[in-house]
Amino acid sequence: MTKNNYVGSELWKIRHSTAHVMAQAVRDLFPEGEAKIAIGPPIADGFYYDFDLPRALTPEDLEEIEKKMRGVLSEDYKFVRRELSADEARDLFSDQPYKLDLIEGLESGGQDEYGEPLDEKPVISTYTHADFEDLCRGPHVESTAQINPDAVKLLNVAGAYWRGDEHNPMLQRIYGTAWKTEAELKEYLEKLEEAKRRDHRRLGKDLDLYSTSPEVGSGLVLWHPNGAYIRYQAEKYCQEEHLKNGYEFVTTPHIGKAHLWETSGHLTWYEENMYSALDIDQESYYLKPMNCPFHIMIYKSSLRSYRDLPLRWAEWGTVYRYERSGVLHGMMRVRGFTQDDAHIFCSPEQMPAEIDRVLNFCLHILGGFGITEFHAYLSTRDPDKSAGDVDLWDDATEALRAALDRAGLPYDIDEGGAAFYGPKIDLKMIDALDREWQLSTIQFDFNLPERFDLTYIGEDGKQHRPYMIHRALLGSMERFIGVLVEHYGGAFPLWLAPTQAILIPITDRNLDYVYQAAEQMRAAGIRVKVDDSSDRMGAKIRDAEKLKIPYMLVVGDREQAANTVAPRLRSGEQLEPLSVEALLERMEEEIKNHTQI
Amino acid sequence: MTKNNYVGSELWKIRHSTAHVMAQAVRDLFPEGEAKIAIGPPIADGFYYDFDLPRALTPEDLEEIEKKMRGVLSEDYKFVRRELSADEARDLFSDQPYKLDLIEGLESGGQDEYGEPLDEKPVISTYTHADFEDLCRGPHVESTAQINPDAVKLLNVAGAYWRGDEHNPMLQRIYGTAWKTEAELKEYLEKLEEAKRRDHRRLGKDLDLYSTSPEVGSGLVLWHPNGAYIRYQAEKYCQEEHLKNGYEFVTTPHIGKAHLWETSGHLTWYEENMYSALDIDQESYYLKPMNCPFHIMIYKSSLRSYRDLPLRWAEWGTVYRYERSGVLHGMMRVRGFTQDDAHIFCSPEQMPAEIDRVLNFCLHILGGFGITEFHAYLSTRDPDKSAGDVDLWDDATEALRAALDRAGLPYDIDEGGAAFYGPKIDLKMIDALDREWQLSTIQFDFNLPERFDLTYIGEDGKQHRPYMIHRALLGSMERFIGVLVEHYGGAFPLWLAPTQAILIPITDRNLDYVYQAAEQMRAAGIRVKVDDSSDRMGAKIRDAEKLKIPYMLVVGDREQAANTVAPRLRSGEQLEPLSVEALLERMEEEIKNHTQI
Repeated sequence: MTKNNYVGSELWKIRHSTAHVMAQAVRDLFPEGEAKIAIGPPIADGFYYDFDLPRALTPEDLEEIEKKMRGVLSEDYKFVRRELSADEARDLFSDQPYKLDLIEGLESGGQDEYGEPLDEKPVISTYTHADFEDLCRGPHVESTAQINPDAVKLLNVAGAYWRGDEHNPMLQRIYGTAWKTEAELKEYLEKLEEAKRRDHRRLGKDLDLYSTSPEVGSGLVLWHPNGAYIRYQAEKYCQEEHLKNGYEFVTTPHIGKAHLWETSGHLTWYEENMYSALDIDQESYYLKPMNCPFHIMIYKSSLRSYRDLPLRWAEWGTVYRYERSGVLHGMMRVRGFTQDDAHIFCSPEQMPAEIDRVLNFCLHILGGFGITEFHAYLSTRDPDKSAGDVDLWDDATEALRAALDRAGLPYDIDEGGAAFYGPKIDLKMIDALDREWQLSTIQFDFNLPERFDLTYIGEDGKQHRPYMIHRALLGSMERFIGVLVEHYGGAFPLWLAPTQAILIPITDRNLDYVYQAAEQMRAAGIRVKVDDSSDRMGAKIRDAEKLKIPYMLVVGDREQAANTVAPRLRSGEQLEPLSVEALLERMEEEIKNHTQI
Repeated sequence: MTKNNYVGSELWKIRHSTAHVMAQAVRDLFPEGEAKIAIGPPIADGFYYDFDLPRALTPEDLEEIEKKMRGVLSEDYKFVRRELSADEARDLFSDQPYKLDLIEGLESGGQDEYGEPLDEKPVISTYTHADFEDLCRGPHVESTAQINPDAVKLLNVAGAYWRGDEHNPMLQRIYGTAWKTEAELKEYLEKLEEAKRRDHRRLGKDLDLYSTSPEVGSGLVLWHPNGAYIRYQAEKYCQEEHLKNGYEFVTTPHIGKAHLWETSGHLTWYEENMYSALDIDQESYYLKPMNCPFHIMIYKSSLRSYRDLPLRWAEWGTVYRYERSGVLHGMMRVRGFTQDDAHIFCSPEQMPAEIDRVLNFCLHILGGFGITEFHAYLSTRDPDKSAGDVDLWDDATEALRAALDRAGLPYDIDEGGAAFYGPKIDLKMIDALDREWQLSTIQFDFNLPERFDLTYIGEDGKQHRPYMIHRALLGSMERFIGVLVEHYGGAFPLWLAPTQAILIPITDRNLDYVYQAAEQMRAAGIRVKVDDSSDRMGAKIRDAEKLKIPYMLVVGDREQAANTVAPRLRSGEQLEPLSVEALLERMEEEIKNHTQI
């Protein structure tokens, strides 16, 4: 289900209504009217409600709330809507300060009941079920009988600032989920458990992939050897494919003069994401939040002719952007990250073919990581704020749409959702747990070529303005490897695995053979380790399984005599003993094909 | 000739004396006593003298000065030394303010006549030849008859601040050279011309390798596609060799908290090379001038055991260090550069073998770039300033010396020349023009392991301090590629050449075949271009030669009919026409072997 057809759907209404039932239960848990209720929207896969309560909720409270909800849900209460004036609403919610705040927002016409901005002044309405009336725009299910009590589950409590602003009070947010059937709920809870097991922060520690350190600074990733190896292999693959696809590389610094960022406009419209300036010889320099201005300076270092176009310039460029400490999350949301960035400069005639090319290349690259399920979003022009000529926007948007159609990708259109500088495609992958992750972006820019006055000499001998296309395929290496960890559950395909095989001798008698086999495999370029510790077999296998090493190669007297190894695969499968040569052939095939076992 | 046995040698004295003769000539060019003379030492390959003059010198002045010098050198004037008191010296040089400044330095005992610090209070002396007496410690040749007038040449004039301090007056520095024979002078001047032709700043522009831009900031290199490609290939080769040699990779951020740099001591003893702080959430962060503290934080992220050692962690890490704008020089001296950095953490038992290993690996890596001539420098402990135990220093120094001996490298010892934190080997390459370039360094650190309290658990179950060895083989990618440009004169070996071959059709009839051959070569991974412009053959060949493309493949009717190409090599050699298959085989062999044609 895409985001667009989820909102207002049956399931969305079930969750919205269940949030009301939860708020009712929490109100009843604090009978003296001590529970102040804030907002409670449906979200992807569930709902939440925020409360201001006299004490912290315990797991036992959640059980009690769930019990109370079950009681309500066993009855058939209608959800009844009524409209009321602001004064009536204020009267009704006189002891609920957050509702009063919301009513003020509604009355001023600027915000809906969740504090989100609104285009026109809304009608104030409430929904009532049983004895619980809540400020709400709806819609809801008709009655509590439409909510399956066995398909509802409260999940956890987390802190959340009122209106997401850290200057406001911290509220308690209860997350819950609701489905149509018990089976759906069960499947979802299993997925949640699986997601916890796959959490890249947990696996990042177990597999020794990376760390962050308060001494270095929050949101700054230290890549340990295992993580750095995965990144190295991923970048190497991407770089080789980029060369084959007609890209060239450029490399640019991490700082640039204030004047550059003034010309680019970043200091005007992006300053809050940039770090404070540093000083060199009485001039201000900024850490780069984007690579574009540097690529543009290279473009401008020569006179360009139509014969030079298209230029496709790629850089694995590390950029630094401010994120509030509260939103930092493992490798996924950080303060410094490396984009697999590229800029394409082309003529109008070349543009549609370039868009096709970059989209297909994107699918090819991601396919190399076993990523084959996507959901695309096309963001189009906002008539109220857009740089550049409308005809250019139309041509560009049409090229993006046509490329999506030709690639046969499902996509939603976000009408008017483009940034002011150009239309774009965002590509989200759908992972092994059916979650969407934003990865790729293909984005026109009608702003920077104007600001930097980019030109090329056309066949007519006159100056023309090139199209400039930003694109990142993996997005950021930090985030992408984090997503891969969760997608694979840490079980990386052989070509990416930091350790590809471990040799496990059954007794010390087998050690010489094991060392010799290890040397043979290393010479063939396989990353192999030997477990020559004094641990028992079972423990060695368990250790290797915990590290998710693809091939565990057991060697006992029998294998040694026959010059073979007995592979146990990470997947659980056990192969017949085979010679190291035969094993290498098998592994090389897997590596070449990026197979995941 | 090494630096150590050059000083005081016959050639050194010839140059020193010639500098006096030049000063005499300049004095005589401005007969009213307007020439104020400063200092005039011998330097590698020549000498200079600094003057404060009423007007800028012209090329005609240099000719005139040279003529006057020839006049002096045709006579047999003795160089006569005399000692004098500070008062006598002041009297003698009363109209020479720079000499008076020098006398003050000599009298206070702190500085020699070149303003260099001295250990003990020196005797004040002058040397006189003909009618010219100069404040000077000597030594000199016995007489001007020992200077061959046909082996002397003035080269150019440059600005230089008195005592190198930009707050002092700017003087005019005349550079000259002097040799024993005319033949040696001629050879040297030819080398100078060749060095100009090979200047990486000139070739960097001609070959479109890189640029710097005042809009981005001085000393910050923008790598254009051609330069970035060479760097990519160089890094790829190095990275693959590092993996084979038992290194692992790590990747770390470009900024770190002030506290980290306080702990490491960089803010105490390296602050002048660091840029000013930037602020994130009210904390100060600094751009990294070195990668070490980050690698150390990774080391400290786990408990380490003797079984984990040695750890060899490599990072192509971009660091930022302040350089005065006056000393910035193309890619060679910059403000941001990427070190091929690694840190080795090992036990005392492992240390000697690790040093051997890293030195041999260094020679292997550099050999891959065709660099086979070296001069090594071993810097030992300064008893007055050194961190860590003397025994550790002794063991480390002995391991460095033994590794140099085993590798059979010529080396000089810089007694007491080590930094306070540990002894080191510096390896300079000797390039195609016999110039020395500092590249590699292998350096012990007894300071950081203490400051960060690095430990590992030994076989005895107790905590031990590991050895920490910094090493960089190429030094910095910016500088190294700059050196390579000059070493190769821009004619990169096939494996590094951004464009490896260009196909040149003689007429348009040959175009189809040329495109087909280009496709075939591209499919084999060769970076090939087609010159399908309407230029004439001769111009196409000249263009390709200017770009130093290794293979120029000419195709006419004859070649097309026989399915062959007629290669002209960059070296000037012409091959018999051969099939594309045979050509690819030849090129692949060259690429594999890193052959330079």
